[in-house]
This record gives sequence, C-alpha cells and structure tokens, in this order.
Amino acid sequence: MEKSVREISDFLDGQIIGNHEKKIIGIAVLEEATETEISFVTNKKYLQKALETKAGALILSEKIQTNATQILVKDSYLAFAKVMSLFFVENLVPKISQTAKIHKTVFLGKNVFIGENVFIGENCEIGENTKIFPNVTIYPNTKIGEFCRIHSGTVIGSDGFGFVPTENSVLKIPQTGSVKIGDFVEIGANCTINCGTLASTEIGNFVKLDSQVHIAHNVKIGKCTLIAAQTGISGSTEIGKFVQIGGQVGIGGHLKIGDFAKIGGKSGVTKNVKENETVFGYPAREINLTKKIEAVLRKMAKK
Amino acid sequence: MEKSVREISDFLDGQIIGNHEKKIIGIAVLEEATETEISFVTNKKYLQKALETKAGALILSEKIQTNATQILVKDSYLAFAKVMSLFFVENLVPKISQTAKIHKTVFLGKNVFIGENVFIGENCEIGENTKIFPNVTIYPNTKIGEFCRIHSGTVIGSDGFGFVPTENSVLKIPQTGSVKIGDFVEIGANCTINCGTLASTEIGNFVKLDSQVHIAHNVKIGKCTLIAAQTGISGSTEIGKFVQIGGQVGIGGHLKIGDFAKIGGKSGVTKNVKENETVFGYPAREINLTKKIEAVLRKMAKK
Amino acid sequence: MEKSVREISDFLDGQIIGNHEKKIIGIAVLEEATETEISFVTNKKYLQKALETKAGALILSEKIQTNATQILVKDSYLAFAKVMSLFFVENLVPKISQTAKIHKTVFLGKNVFIGENVFIGENCEIGENTKIFPNVTIYPNTKIGEFCRIHSGTVIGSDGFGFVPTENSVLKIPQTGSVKIGDFVEIGANCTINCGTLASTEIGNFVKLDSQVHIAHNVKIGKCTLIAAQTGISGSTEIGKFVQIGGQVGIGGHLKIGDFAKIGGKSGVTKNVKENETVFGYPAREINLTKKIEAVLRKMAKK
Repeated sequence: MEKSVREISDFLDGQIIGNHEKKIIGIAVLEEATETEISFVTNKKYLQKALETKAGALILSEKIQTNATQILVKDSYLAFAKVMSLFFVENLVPKISQTAKIHKTVFLGKNVFIGENVFIGENCEIGENTKIFPNVTIYPNTKIGEFCRIHSGTVIGSDGFGFVPTENSVLKIPQTGSVKIGDFVEIGANCTINCGTLASTEIGNFVKLDSQVHIAHNVKIGKCTLIAAQTGISGSTEIGKFVQIGGQVGIGGHLKIGDFAKIGGKSGVTKNVKENETVFGYPAREINLTKKIEAVLRKMAKK
Repeated sequence: MEKSVREISDFLDGQIIGNHEKKIIGIAVLEEATETEISFVTNKKYLQKALETKAGALILSEKIQTNATQILVKDSYLAFAKVMSLFFVENLVPKISQTAKIHKTVFLGKNVFIGENVFIGENCEIGENTKIFPNVTIYPNTKIGEFCRIHSGTVIGSDGFGFVPTENSVLKIPQTGSVKIGDFVEIGANCTINCGTLASTEIGNFVKLDSQVHIAHNVKIGKCTLIAAQTGISGSTEIGKFVQIGGQVGIGGHLKIGDFAKIGGKSGVTKNVKENETVFGYPAREINLTKKIEAVLRKMAKK
Repeated sequence: MEKSVREISDFLDGQIIGNHEKKIIGIAVLEEATETEISFVTNKKYLQKALETKAGALILSEKIQTNATQILVKDSYLAFAKVMSLFFVENLVPKISQTAKIHKTVFLGKNVFIGENVFIGENCEIGENTKIFPNVTIYPNTKIGEFCRIHSGTVIGSDGFGFVPTENSVLKIPQTGSVKIGDFVEIGANCTINCGTLASTEIGNFVKLDSQVHIAHNVKIGKCTLIAAQTGISGSTEIGKFVQIGGQVGIGGHLKIGDFAKIGGKSGVTKNVKENETVFGYPAREINLTKKIEAVLRKMAKK
C-alpha cells in the first residue's frame, strides 16, 4: 500500500509541516523506520529518538526540530491506532480446523475462524466473523457475539469458585449458569471466565481483556471497558461502561464500579467505586489520597 | 424435580413462614425467579431485591416483610449450597475422549471422564470418578485421587523454578519429583502445579483451588483448604488444613501457615501464620494491625 | 549411577568431613534420604532436620554435629544444583508428535521435541535441541533459539493490549510484530508472551520465566534474568541482564530496569530501577526505605 503524507494527514485531521506529497509505504518504530516509512511519538520519553529517527514522516502532537515531515494531531496515540488500521487490515479467512472439537448442538455464525484443538461444548453460539485462536476451551452454554477475537489458552465457562466448608469436608455449590459475551469483544491469551452460578456472567460489547485476566461467576461488565493483564474480578461484581482497569488489579465480590471509573495498576478494590472516580492503592483509595499518603510516608521515613 | 417447601425446609433444618405445601420446581436468582422457584439471600446487600422478587419461596437467615414463603435457616449460604446440590445432581458420564493422549503406563480408575486433547504422561494415576476437562496437561508421575475435577487449561507437574545464576549463564536444577493430589479435590481453570524437586508436591483431600492459582514445587496443602483465584504459593511452603486464602495472595517460600488460618485478598505473606490467625496486607500483618495502620494513614493524610 | 563422596566433593570443590570412599547412588530430601543417598541443607530452617536425617552424606555450607559424612561447600544451593545435574541428566529424546499442528513454513532445528497438541503458526523458527511441551501455542513469526524448554499451556506471540477508546466504541491497534527468544531460555507453564506491535518482543539468552508470567508487547529482557511466577511486565519496558524479579511483581510500561537489579516479591514498579538497585513495595521503593516505612507504621499503630 502507498499513501501520501497528505492522504494520511487528511485521514487523521492533521496538520502537515513539510512535504505533503511524500510517499509512505509502511509504518515502523522510530529506531527502525526508513525514508519511505512513517513513525510516531506517543510518549514524551521518546522525543530524543524522534530527533534521531530516519523515518520519512512523523506523527506527533507537538512540533519538533527535525527534517522529517511532521503530521501534527491532537491525540497521537489515537492517530497511531488509526494509521495502523489503515496499513494493516486484518482479513479474517474463515476456517474450521479439523482438530477442533465442536459439539453438534453448537450454532456457528457465518465466516467464523475456529483454530486447532479448540473445544466448544454443547449449546454454545459463536457469532459471525468471530475468530477463536488455537487451544481455546469453551464450556457448554456459552454465547459469544460477532466480530470477537478469543486468544489461545483462554477458558470460558468453567465453574466458579463456590464452596462451603463443613465440619469435615467441603460442599460444592453446583455452577449451572452460562456466559454471555457481546460483539467486538477481544479476550487475551490464558484468560479464565467462569459461568454464572445460576444466571449468567456477562461481558458487554467492545470490552477488551488483556492476557491472564480472571472474571469470576456472575460478574457483569459494561460496554467499552478495558481490563489490563492479570487482573481478577471477584464474583457478582458489576462493572460499568468505559471503565479502565490497570494490570494486576483485584476487585472484591459484590461491588459496583461506576461508568468511566479508572483503577490504577495493582490496586486492591474493597469498596464501590463511583462514576468517573479514579482510585489507586491497596486498599484502593481515591488516587489523590493515596498519593498524599505516599508523600507523608516518605517524609516520615526520612526523619 | 418437584419438592414442597416442607421437604426443602426439613432437608435444611429450617423454619417455614408461609405455605408449607407450596411446590417448588427450581432455583433462580432473585431478579429472575418465578412463583414455582425458590430463591435465596446470602448477602445483606440483596435484601431490597428480596423484597421485590417474584420467587415463590425464599431461603434466608432473617425474616423479612414479604408475601413469599420464607425458609429461615442458620447459615443461608450453606443452605443455598445444599439446595443447589439437591436440584442439580451432577452425573458424571464416564468417557475417554478419542483425542486425549494417555501414556500406556497410566492407571485410570473406573468411571473417569477424560476430556478432549487432554495429555497424561507416563506413570500417572487417575482415581475413580475423577473428571479431567478438555485441554488439561498432566506431566509424568502425577497421582490424582478419586472424585476430583480438574478444569481446562490447568497444567499439573511442570518443572518448578529452580535456577542458580552463575558468572555467565544460569544453571538449572533438574525437577525430578512428582505431584500427589488427594480425593475430592477441585482445581480451577488455567492453574499450574509444579512437581517437587526431589520429593512431591502434595494437595490434601477436599482442597479447592480457584482459577489461575499457582502452586510451586514441594508445597504441601492440608485437607479442606480453599484458595481463591490468582493466588501463588512459593516453593516448600506448608499450608495447614481448613485454611482460607483470598484471591491474588502471594505466600513466600519455606513458610508454615497454620490450620484454620485466614489470609485476606491480595496479601503478601512473608512470615509464618499461626493456627486460627487472620492476616491481611502487604506485607501481611495480623488483620487488626493492618486496619489500624490504614486508619492512621487516612487520618495523617487529612492534616 | 554410583559416585563416591570423594568424586562428588571434587566436582564441587568441597571439603569432606567423614568417609571419602562412601558410595552414593542417589539424592533425596532430608526426611527421605537413606544410607546410600546424599542430601543437602540450602536453608538454615532445615538444620534440625539435617541432624536427624538418615542420609549417608550431606552437602552444606557449615559443619554440623552429625555422624553423616559432610561435604562443606561455599554455596550449598549452587552445589545442590550441580549435584542434581550430575545425577539427573535430562536426555532430550527428539520427537514431533503426530497431533502437533506445525505450519509448513516453520523451520525446525535438529533434535527438537514437539509435544502433543502443540500449535506452531507460519514463519516460526524452533532452534536445535529445544523442547516444546504439550498444549503450547506459538503464533506466527515467533523465533525460538536452541536448547530452550517451553512448558505446557504457554502462549507465545498473541496480540498485545493496544486499544484506544473512542466516543462509542474501542479502536484496536493491529499487533503486527514478532517474538524473538534466545538460546537456553526456559518458560514455565501457562505464561503469555505478546508479539510486538510493530517491532519485536525480545527475550535474551538464559532468561528463565516461572509459571504464569506475562510479558507484554515490545518488552526486551536481557540475558540471564530470572522472573518468578505470576509476574507481569507492561509494554515497551526494558529489563537488563542478570536481573532477579520475585513473584507477582508488576512493572509499569516504558520503564528501564538496570542490570543486576533485584525486585522483591509482589512489588509494583512505577519508576526506572537503577543498575544493582534492590527495590520492594507497592509502590516499589529502595528496599531500605520500604523497610523503614514498615517499621514506622507498626510503631504508629501501637500508640
């Protein structure tokens, strides 16, 4: 594919400094880009590298002193995402691998990709244009929407953790519910999503889970929520829409996390989080409180 | 299945308020239950929903103002577990999947279920009535007892982390031991249980592991201990019986955790924990100390 | 295999107290060792057991009062590793399992072992003498060096977490890079290593990852670095050589961790770590600062 800087800038609503007609045939990182490639600065830490890059053009949000042609945009990370999608169009080639084991009662939408050694149990539904990578396990009664991507090693619908210790043994609570996953959901590698105990565990449209995320039974997650790697959500917790959750966060059971909330990496959330609130820490507190506590601790330790 | 409220109450040693002869044909959550279903309140947060439910009968530990028939019990969570087991009897249908790869030296007990793509290495034993879900990997020399359930993606018997850095490389300590798992053990999805270095890693009867739990080499876990998701136990640590460990807990190596101890979610345990002790925090401290510290910190930050 | 105490001691550069000619035919833990076996003390906690052992010989770094023959060495853990390697020579028996799905474009070196149900995508390379255990998934464009060991359930090359929320949906950043893994690398069970966004995620020679470790896109890890279980490294972070990272550590994105640094278990690293520095805590601080803070907190809570 070949695009001119002008075409790329128009696509991004950007402003060009330099050669509008320069031809760009690819994207590369600052260290590796060449004269016919475009690169980008999405983090100030890389400004020095941007000054030294051999890229023919740069996407960034503030002008720098360079001979490379620059496309200035409001949000360079969003612009980067857009240009990546422009150059790299993923074509889903539908396929049902011969080694996949799909129960005869499963409903498969059109144009699905089912990778090697995938297991899909009875009464599942897989929506159109969804891609299931190799070695994924999907327990019975799981419904997955359209245009989803489920990465390898992920297990969907396994039993939630419901046990009651008795005097001399442990009683299991049968886990008889299901999992419902919306459209345009992406789930990273080696995640685990438990079925509901009686009702369902639900993941909304456009939710994106990183690798090794754990979602316990009866959890509900609103649309467009992002959850980074190794985070775990305990049973029956309800998470709003457009929530952003960092890596290795733990959220207790039976809590509510409001829409647009943000939860900092490695936080341990023990209480409800309000709409738009940002929390951080273990235990998670309003972020400024946690920062203030850290400052106080450092001062005290110096005495 | 149909049961009268009287039958259910008798089974639970409960006390009925309302219609003893009401017929119940199923269990459902408060929001979804209908006139012929029983529901339950196991957490005070759901009392409002209980007042609004259309369930024909309710299991709870305190009387509420409702027209629904109530069964009052001492422990509503235990009662819920019992009624679930009454209505949902899991019938293990024995099966050895054709895609399972089971070494010829493996001893399989009667009535086992071995799912698709399961791998079982040499000299393993799988006890009677045990169910291994699809895509589980069991390394050589693993012994699993009776009536166990091992969920998908779990790996049992892989090498423990034994390495010694030298001047210009890293020396591996061969991991030559085994894993011994008792009876009635349930292991969630995507767990990892390492083999012992020389001797064995041992998991007692009725132990229940949630998803993504990691058990390192040479660990011993006593009977009826429950471990929530994403918790990791470091090498050679010994955990007593009836211990309850929250999610995302980390326990250091070569420690002893006493019987009936409780460890709060996300704690980082660096010292032995006594019998019956409850610890919480990072580093884990006696729980009241951690609570006091949190209160002091909040007060200081307000100044 | 039979070795005399003299031979073992010579191999370890040790000093013998007792019978130089005693014949040793195996290694065992203190509790289980017999007269013809050698055992070891690598942790002072086990000195009492060492006094009671029936082992014919002991490896340790300080003399104790016992009738067993002793081999005194400078570093008993290193010596243990060496003796283990002496007695347990892992012979890799090359094999490509029939159930493995290997794309026709994959380059396989000599003497590789590819376990059951392994999936290897297009354009991958697997170096000589490397062992891939069952149920591993390797995405396209992954290069793995020689003498590596990749344990079951691990997923290499899956998409990194690159998403940008927009007003009413979430935009995916295509992940088009690769993974490059050096020689003598061992990767534990159920790990996830993401491909680079544009360039590559790189893991140096002799790096050892424990189970359930997560390595995000574009991360670089220097040679001989050890990472314990359930640790996660966020995107674009660079880790030096001979770094030691405890279990359940989280390291933020775009950071640099210097050579020979040490990071204590469960730390949350939010800033660069210098060469040779030891950090611990959440947030991670220079270890003595964290210890001082803990001491101050305990004192304050007692008032």
